[in-house]
This record gives sequence, structure tokens and C-alpha cells, in this order.
Amino acid sequence: MPRKINIKRSVLAADEEYATSIRERMWKERTLVVNLIGSPGAGKTTLLEATLGKIPLSCAVIEGDVATSRDAERISKTGTPVVQINTQGGCHLEAHLLWKALDEIPLSGLDILFVENVGNLVCPAEFDLGEDYKVAVCSVPEGSDKPLKYPHLFHEAGAVVLTKVDLVPYLDFDSDLFWSDVKRLNSLASCLEVESLNGKGIEAWSEVLERWLMEKRQ
Amino acid sequence: MPRKINIKRSVLAADEEYATSIRERMWKERTLVVNLIGSPGAGKTTLLEATLGKIPLSCAVIEGDVATSRDAERISKTGTPVVQINTQGGCHLEAHLLWKALDEIPLSGLDILFVENVGNLVCPAEFDLGEDYKVAVCSVPEGSDKPLKYPHLFHEAGAVVLTKVDLVPYLDFDSDLFWSDVKRLNSLASCLEVESLNGKGIEAWSEVLERWLMEKRQ
Repeated sequence: MPRKINIKRSVLAADEEYATSIRERMWKERTLVVNLIGSPGAGKTTLLEATLGKIPLSCAVIEGDVATSRDAERISKTGTPVVQINTQGGCHLEAHLLWKALDEIPLSGLDILFVENVGNLVCPAEFDLGEDYKVAVCSVPEGSDKPLKYPHLFHEAGAVVLTKVDLVPYLDFDSDLFWSDVKRLNSLASCLEVESLNGKGIEAWSEVLERWLMEKRQ
Repeated sequence: MPRKINIKRSVLAADEEYATSIRERMWKERTLVVNLIGSPGAGKTTLLEATLGKIPLSCAVIEGDVATSRDAERISKTGTPVVQINTQGGCHLEAHLLWKALDEIPLSGLDILFVENVGNLVCPAEFDLGEDYKVAVCSVPEGSDKPLKYPHLFHEAGAVVLTKVDLVPYLDFDSDLFWSDVKRLNSLASCLEVESLNGKGIEAWSEVLERWLMEKRQ
């Protein structure tokens, strides 16, 4: 009788099943899931703080960070339910981590679940978390060359949010180049400019979220 | 006779051998190898442009990017030999890629080989490229909370270079917090503040590089 060798299922394949389970569960809950992806310091948490203060919907947040719970503490101050995932060095969130975190979130009646991914413009774009939309968050100080240098995320994103637009006068940032490169990669993405600290652009961004939620619930 | 199952050597182990080969080769060449690591838009290329214009040494650059050769084109304008590695989606440089690129660099008489890693504050810190020093490049607009949120790189770095210091007046950046967190993680790192576009701080940074080179050649 031949010896049997058990091959472990690939971690990635198992993770894809978790992503499918998340998608099915959030479909039943009728909750929109938005995965925010961007570099360290792109302004993802600040965008969330501004959004949560403005949007007339029931929201919750899952925070992904390599270390610390600083971002979750900031979100918690807005009164929004929040769970922190620390990846302990991992460069992106994976669906099995998110699946576990869902147990800590009050899902009933929830309109939007925001996932703030680990600060990284590369790896998080490759992983399906069962979200409805990935959103690319990019800040003016990063420079207008970023879409073509990190094309995958911009290609995948349902929306691109350019933050810290108030810094344009102090920097050599070419807005026309930035947006034309985004459009070359992804003609369908919603394009938004915001100044989260003073609320500018947050209404238009909230309208995109409300439209996505309405479309999911139709 | 039992069936034999060949296990492929781990990719990581093979890559460690390339790193060792690079270290040995650059030891013979008496060339300092400096691996610049930071987020997208941290100002790594601009720091290099300013350094190459100032430092009285023979330098070359290997540029790592997910896509495009924009950074190599910028470096090329300074008259410095440069090779572009495109990782085609990969989130960090690996030693086997660097080993191959070395064939394109005139090593004889070279003082410093700069490696600009893929813009990413997480993954590149985990990979040995056979460099003498990793350098953490972090910009003021990223925020003063970054060292504790991305501790691994700051822990490993021989120097931490804070860029875009001219933007401090326009941002809520706590320099004391930033540097005290860096010191908590790594009391030995050289700490530098620069404004690459006007040359401020580049001399002190160049002196660190010259000291490292002298120490290697002693």
C-alpha cells in the first residue's frame, strides 16, 4: 500500500474561503464593507474620523496595524464601535483575521463596516477581504507620480481619495498628472479630493458611500 | 526502496546566500552599501539627488520600484550610474535581484552603492540585501506616530533620516515624540533632519555616510 503524503492546503486558498464567507455574511447583514488602503501617513484614520463625524449612518471600524492600538483609540473617541487587529509585523490584513474580528462587531443594523488596512501601498491590494470596495487613499505629500508607480491598487479601487489637498500650495504636486494617471489605470473609479481636518470634500465622499450602500441594498 | 521526496530549498534560505555573496563581494571592493527604506513619497529619491550633488565620493544607485523607471531617470540626470529593478508587483527587493543588478554597475573604485528599496515601511525591513546599513527615511507629513507603529525598520536602522522638515509649520507634527520613540526603539541610530530640496541637513547626513565608509575601510 503506497504511503500517503498529506499536502497542506495553501494558506492563500484557505484565506479565499474566509473572504467568500465574509462576503456571504455581510450580504445577509446588508452591510457595506469598505477596505481603505494607503501608505503610512496617507491620512486613512483622519479620513475615517471626519467621515464618522459627518455621515448619518450606523458604522463600525476594524483597524489593522503592525503594532500599537493608537488608531483604534482615535476612532473610539468618535463613539464608533472599533476592533484593533495587530499583525505583529505582517504587512497586510488577511480574511481569516477579519473573520475573527467580526465576532467583536455588533453587525445587526450596521450600515457600513470600514476596514483600515495596514499602511502599505503594495501588499494589501493583493488580498481579498470579502469587501465590496477597495478605496485607495493617497496624500498630496506622497507626490503625483504614485498611481503609475503603484498601479495595482489604483487599478482595483472603487474610489481614489486624495487627502491633504490643503498642502498643494507648499509642494510641487501636479493634480492634473495625478488624476489623468488614475484615469488611465481605472476609468471607473470615483475620484475625490479632501481636506479631512477641515471637512472639505467629506460630503462628496460620504455621498459615494451612501450610493454604494443603496446599490448593495437594491 | 522508499520513494524519495525532494524538498525544494526555501526561497528565503537561497536569498540569504545571495546576501552573503553580496556582502563578501562588496567587502573585497571596499564599497559601502546603504539600503534606503521608507514609505511611498517619503522622499528617498529626492534625498539621493541632494546627496549625490553634495558628497565628494564615487557613488552608484540601484533603484527598486514596483513599476516605472521614473526614479532611475531622475538619478541618471545627476550623472550617477544607476540601474532600475522593477519588481512587477513585488513589495520589496530581494538579494538575488540585487546580485544580478551588480553586473550592470561599475564597481571598481566605487565608494558608496545606494539601494533605494520599494516604497514600503514594512516588508523591505525584513530582507537582508547584504547591505552595511539600512536607513529609515520618514517624512514629516507621515506623522510623528510612525516609529512605534512600524517598529521593525526603526529598530534595524543604522540611521533615521526625517525628511520634509520645512513642512513642520503647516502640520501637527511632534518632533520630540518622533525622536524619543526612535530612541526607545534604537538608541544607537544616527538621527538626522533634512530639507532635501534646499540642501539643509545634507552635510550632516553626508558626514554619517563618510564615517561609515571610513569605518568599513579601516
